[in-house]
Amino acid sequence: MRTVFWENDCLKLIDQRRLPEALEVVSLHTLMETAAAIRSMTVRGAPAIGAAAAFGLALAARSSQARSASELLAELEAAGETLKTTRPTAVNLAWAVERMLGTLRSTSGTPTELGKLALAEAQRIADEDVQVNRRMGVIGAELIADGDTIIHHCNTGALAVVDWGTALGVIRTAHEQGKRLHILVDETRPLLQGARLTAWELQQYGIPYEIISDNMAGYFLRMGQVQKVIFGADRIAANGDVANKIGTYMLALAAKDNGIPAYSVVPASTIDLSLAHGGLIPIEERSGAEVLNIQLAGERVTPKNAKARNPAFDVTPNRLISGIVTENGVVYPPFEVNLPKFVNPK
Amino acid sequence: MRTVFWENDCLKLIDQRRLPEALEVVSLHTLMETAAAIRSMTVRGAPAIGAAAAFGLALAARSSQARSASELLAELEAAGETLKTTRPTAVNLAWAVERMLGTLRSTSGTPTELGKLALAEAQRIADEDVQVNRRMGVIGAELIADGDTIIHHCNTGALAVVDWGTALGVIRTAHEQGKRLHILVDETRPLLQGARLTAWELQQYGIPYEIISDNMAGYFLRMGQVQKVIFGADRIAANGDVANKIGTYMLALAAKDNGIPAYSVVPASTIDLSLAHGGLIPIEERSGAEVLNIQLAGERVTPKNAKARNPAFDVTPNRLISGIVTENGVVYPPFEVNLPKFVNPK
Repeated sequence: MRTVFWENDCLKLIDQRRLPEALEVVSLHTLMETAAAIRSMTVRGAPAIGAAAAFGLALAARSSQARSASELLAELEAAGETLKTTRPTAVNLAWAVERMLGTLRSTSGTPTELGKLALAEAQRIADEDVQVNRRMGVIGAELIADGDTIIHHCNTGALAVVDWGTALGVIRTAHEQGKRLHILVDETRPLLQGARLTAWELQQYGIPYEIISDNMAGYFLRMGQVQKVIFGADRIAANGDVANKIGTYMLALAAKDNGIPAYSVVPASTIDLSLAHGGLIPIEERSGAEVLNIQLAGERVTPKNAKARNPAFDVTPNRLISGIVTENGVVYPPFEVNLPKFVNPK
Repeated sequence: MRTVFWENDCLKLIDQRRLPEALEVVSLHTLMETAAAIRSMTVRGAPAIGAAAAFGLALAARSSQARSASELLAELEAAGETLKTTRPTAVNLAWAVERMLGTLRSTSGTPTELGKLALAEAQRIADEDVQVNRRMGVIGAELIADGDTIIHHCNTGALAVVDWGTALGVIRTAHEQGKRLHILVDETRPLLQGARLTAWELQQYGIPYEIISDNMAGYFLRMGQVQKVIFGADRIAANGDVANKIGTYMLALAAKDNGIPAYSVVPASTIDLSLAHGGLIPIEERSGAEVLNIQLAGERVTPKNAKARNPAFDVTPNRLISGIVTENGVVYPPFEVNLPKFVNPK
């Protein structure tokens, strides 16, 4: 089953807030439902929200009353702005919106024809995502040795993309190749994507793992028990600075301090050459309630009236990144020089 | 109210597993109840468990049927071993047990007289702890500037000692002196001592704070929003390596990476000159259930049958420690040379 797919004239998503307790699929019929699902993290993971946004535009096109192609295009451009504001950090969302609009702009036809084209293009984005993930898996698996213990941050598996996974896709491919792996799963506070989603996926795949709290990663690195650190990214700047789920910086720093390589695994669409460095990447700050209460349990674990901060991402400076795995190959430093060679031509 | 105190012929403890939901005091009547309370972390914090263990020996002496001083002493030595095995990392527990036994060994008297002496010595340990904390507060507050934003790890306040606090005691003293402070409280997974206990204490004291998840500390350090990082310690080796609550290493590393000083605040009894470096400090690993379930809520947030690791402490190498605040002054590097000058003579 895909995480994001089109069925019976609507967009279907695995509800990631309900796992691992329940595997539930929600059906979305409108642009606004799609935007709300991205904002609430019913769907999450940079590539997955890109695909969801593409289908959201297809939903907007189908329900449009526009009488001309240009009227429809204006509506979809507004819809694209709505989608882009839901989660500002991951570039894949903006990338998917721009790709959808670019395709529609370069085509002529009736609103109905453009609506069909929008759905076909969204479907193509989703299908390509799966192929790209499979390619990254094969390329990245070459970096993984038999017997490796790997620390993995957040969720980058099938649930974070359309299918297969980025960093977790590399782990899955290495496992398929018969390499014996042990994964230390960062729980990834505050929303516990590691403890809930990555642990659930690894259990499905039969890959041995143990959950650790994020602050334990340094302990295992210092004890010499870890050979690789691996994560995805939500946006990579032109110099190789990596914006990814909060906690990535401290993890990559601890890896560096112990001489352990740290790899970011991303589709090339995650690389944003328009930003010179990571300081220019907008960092979303979410509600403090996600820190004050434990997700799912919904139980407050902090004093009444306590306040919290909740930056959802951080930027890991390029000096801490050993390599960036893309579907076009592994990019090594100096990233300023090498990254442009691995980005897909427009 | 003290965290650990003697009243109505028994040992009273604030139950730290119930805060911030409820402030409850438990009464302990036997050695075994005391050992269980330390193991379950009903009482926690290196100095607090030291004082609790001292009172535990006093309870053992009172209930003893020994007919001679030597028989009593043999019983108390066995009781001391029982207490020391409950939590191996913090040296204060072993230190308090040894101090109690040393005092009793050097005295002659009937078992009843020794029992009274044991209680008096435990009371003295508790009283001295409060005085030592107050002195550390004054010494450490000199390192804190008006307007500082400070990241604090775990709980090191009144709840971690008999009264006042170590690292949080420094913050309290600086606050009393009129310095305007803002505390970023590491939630401190897995048991959430920061989110539950430190937040609760800061709220009592009227010191402004916000809770962050441990993996966010690096973000705020990199954003230039933090001036100091401060924590306690469970044991400090002769070279200044600091064993403290899990996550301290990654926090101190991120502080160093951003040129922000990181201070450990401890009574001199936490310094263990018998161990050359931190690699020799035993690190307790607790039940994975503490990671798999959220404390208090008691709700599982991970897949059924998931496993977890749970080292309770880590060792921060001395190169990441800017200074060690003790009741005898601030120790600066080189710690191998300077630490012995600050340790109390036996």
